[in-house]
Amino acid sequence: MLENLKQKVYEANLKLVEYNLVLFTWGNVSEIDKETGLVVIKPSGVDYNKMRPEDMVVMNLNGEKVEGELNPSSDTPTHLELYRRFPDIGGVAHTHSTFAVSFAQAASDIPCYGTTHADFAYGSVPCTRDLTKEEIEGEYELNTGKVIAECFEQGNIDYNAVPAVLVRSHGPFTWGKSGDAAAKNSAILEEVAKMAYLSKTMQAQSANEHIQKKHYFRKHGANAYYGQK
Amino acid sequence: MLENLKQKVYEANLKLVEYNLVLFTWGNVSEIDKETGLVVIKPSGVDYNKMRPEDMVVMNLNGEKVEGELNPSSDTPTHLELYRRFPDIGGVAHTHSTFAVSFAQAASDIPCYGTTHADFAYGSVPCTRDLTKEEIEGEYELNTGKVIAECFEQGNIDYNAVPAVLVRSHGPFTWGKSGDAAAKNSAILEEVAKMAYLSKTMQAQSANEHIQKKHYFRKHGANAYYGQK
Amino acid sequence: MLENLKQKVYEANLKLVEYNLVLFTWGNVSEIDKETGLVVIKPSGVDYNKMRPEDMVVMNLNGEKVEGELNPSSDTPTHLELYRRFPDIGGVAHTHSTFAVSFAQAASDIPCYGTTHADFAYGSVPCTRDLTKEEIEGEYELNTGKVIAECFEQGNIDYNAVPAVLVRSHGPFTWGKSGDAAAKNSAILEEVAKMAYLSKTMQAQSANEHIQKKHYFRKHGANAYYGQK
Amino acid sequence: MLENLKQKVYEANLKLVEYNLVLFTWGNVSEIDKETGLVVIKPSGVDYNKMRPEDMVVMNLNGEKVEGELNPSSDTPTHLELYRRFPDIGGVAHTHSTFAVSFAQAASDIPCYGTTHADFAYGSVPCTRDLTKEEIEGEYELNTGKVIAECFEQGNIDYNAVPAVLVRSHGPFTWGKSGDAAAKNSAILEEVAKMAYLSKTMQAQSANEHIQKKHYFRKHGANAYYGQK
Repeated sequence: MLENLKQKVYEANLKLVEYNLVLFTWGNVSEIDKETGLVVIKPSGVDYNKMRPEDMVVMNLNGEKVEGELNPSSDTPTHLELYRRFPDIGGVAHTHSTFAVSFAQAASDIPCYGTTHADFAYGSVPCTRDLTKEEIEGEYELNTGKVIAECFEQGNIDYNAVPAVLVRSHGPFTWGKSGDAAAKNSAILEEVAKMAYLSKTMQAQSANEHIQKKHYFRKHGANAYYGQK
Repeated sequence: MLENLKQKVYEANLKLVEYNLVLFTWGNVSEIDKETGLVVIKPSGVDYNKMRPEDMVVMNLNGEKVEGELNPSSDTPTHLELYRRFPDIGGVAHTHSTFAVSFAQAASDIPCYGTTHADFAYGSVPCTRDLTKEEIEGEYELNTGKVIAECFEQGNIDYNAVPAVLVRSHGPFTWGKSGDAAAKNSAILEEVAKMAYLSKTMQAQSANEHIQKKHYFRKHGANAYYGQK
Repeated sequence: MLENLKQKVYEANLKLVEYNLVLFTWGNVSEIDKETGLVVIKPSGVDYNKMRPEDMVVMNLNGEKVEGELNPSSDTPTHLELYRRFPDIGGVAHTHSTFAVSFAQAASDIPCYGTTHADFAYGSVPCTRDLTKEEIEGEYELNTGKVIAECFEQGNIDYNAVPAVLVRSHGPFTWGKSGDAAAKNSAILEEVAKMAYLSKTMQAQSANEHIQKKHYFRKHGANAYYGQK
Repeated sequence: MLENLKQKVYEANLKLVEYNLVLFTWGNVSEIDKETGLVVIKPSGVDYNKMRPEDMVVMNLNGEKVEGELNPSSDTPTHLELYRRFPDIGGVAHTHSTFAVSFAQAASDIPCYGTTHADFAYGSVPCTRDLTKEEIEGEYELNTGKVIAECFEQGNIDYNAVPAVLVRSHGPFTWGKSGDAAAKNSAILEEVAKMAYLSKTMQAQSANEHIQKKHYFRKHGANAYYGQK
């Protein structure tokens, strides 16, 4: 079932390798089939260069495996919670990319220091709070998803305008219209995080709100004029 | 029209990829035809590996498209203003290269810390002032060009001796005798910016004026003796 | 003798090159044959691209060469001491990888700043004390191994849960079930060290103990649920 | 004349590219023919991928061109002064490699932070004093060589034990028994400088003198035991 989607998710996972975002088996990408509500995701701990499209695992939104011989990524409950809470998104990616992880480890949002960031996201990329002992010892991966959603809700952040989060002490999750778009957002986030690290260690201040707004809406929304129609 | 120039501009844009200065569709290079005053520039938001020479867009200096099926780079009004204000230049390049952007985000000039910089530019590479709310909400890309020209005029900086600028909170523009030379200057600027970041975080001071002058004029002007005749 | 093991050790040494952990002839990997107690190790100072499987040197645990025309790695006595003191391990790797060395040079443990580290090791990767003048001028490489073992014993650190150490002013040694696993741990350590450098220079604090425990035991031990069975 | 040496010097120059130490036409390597006292050096400002062995320029130690259609590297007088003042050396290399230049720009010696450095050089890699206005405006490249030699003589530094220097505000020169060895030392210096930058920004202290001595003499001199006979 969903063979086309498995192929797409397979290719989106390989993009993480192409973009230099993963070491060994780290990272995972999923995409949801909007008609059936089924999610296709990378299997857990499989080498990227041995992985085949048919190894992708099909899950339903209740967290039950619908098809697949392998275990799904151990981060699957986080992906599923994101699909439940952020209904507009079509794909999710998770990596341990170096600079984005470093901000997560420093428990720091990524401030919008300039237009490279503003082209990508409107305002800071937030870092979540720590999970509690109970959240960690309980359904950890599910709770990770809940803490991400809480971060956006309590911070009044529009997940459509900020397609990325840093899970504190952990690393980034990104999303988009598809698994491929989510993987691409992981690559942009890593570049934005690298620039932010360099700017921060030179004592930069956030860009002013006017330039942030201008660049975001130059690329996104009804009045965007970047690119071709 | 201008098929040779389109080929040249196409190749100069691909140099940005070869020099590792761009991610995805970021960056753009243009070149002016001195006889006709027409400018050839990269189309907006097109993948570098799908782009063809005939996709290049021809503009006049009034900002009107003269030929081309695609939209020109959204930064085109900045390029055109630079050709109007800096009449000696033949090509312009714009990237979001990591270290140069980081200085722009830190609102910092790149001081001349040593001879690698002095071989390239005479004195600091300046960072512009912030654009105002009105400048941003008005003709933003045109105003970006105006602020660059203002920066050089008010700072008494010779654009022939400093072929690069950092637009605050944004990133670098570079120029040269051709699009190819402008792209090459983007690569040198990025390396100079990387060295400057490392030097700055080790509390370096600017090089003395004598060595700055020596290295600049060893490579540039009537008494240059670097390279072959 | 041990031709299969020589092939394995040869390949594990080449992994150091593939993982970008070594320059020129730096670095070395060994593996022990549990049945005979013999150790196969890289020869000293041989180019990776000229090295052949049959060049690997066979040593016994008393430090005597059993087979091989070339000198073994000058770090051999350190490897042998690790096999004697850490009886569960099957392979050892030593590199001068950039970020891990930098922590060793800064005489700093690598704190567990996040889950990338916790997936790899339970708690800090320790940095040894300085060797004394007598230890350096005596059997230096043997004493290096002794100081590593002392560091784990006095610090009550389980070498099975922390498969890496930083030798102060020197660099990392890693271990695992095989030479290949040890080399892989060198690559993970280097990535963890890079993230730690970036986090530390942004004033990060260690991750809380609950998340450290969770991630370590998600991947290691009887209740691990990462990957496939 | 000296066709074999031209071939060797040509290949040593290409090593700078292979080691990722140069951008565009930057950098140069020379080697001296001990019998004739003639020096073969890269031509000035020629692309590495267009350069041919027969383009190498032959100079005598008085600074006169003996053979070659092209201008020699503009840094030739520095190379020649090093051959005159450091009679044991056989080759010289000059690069603008990123981290070594950054120390030169920060006017900082590279302290011996650990064994990677001690394997390469005994004690700090020194940074010269600034050249005076007169030295810069006079025979600049010759005076650069004189200031290097002065730095070693006044600092009582053995050029055989420290095969590298940082020219203040400029960058590194390295040397060795041949042009190839000098190029290799440029690569090691760059790696040592990168580690030193990372260590320094983590507030490292120099390694103790015993370990410095041990590692240097483990690899160099009559009692060396690293590598094969």
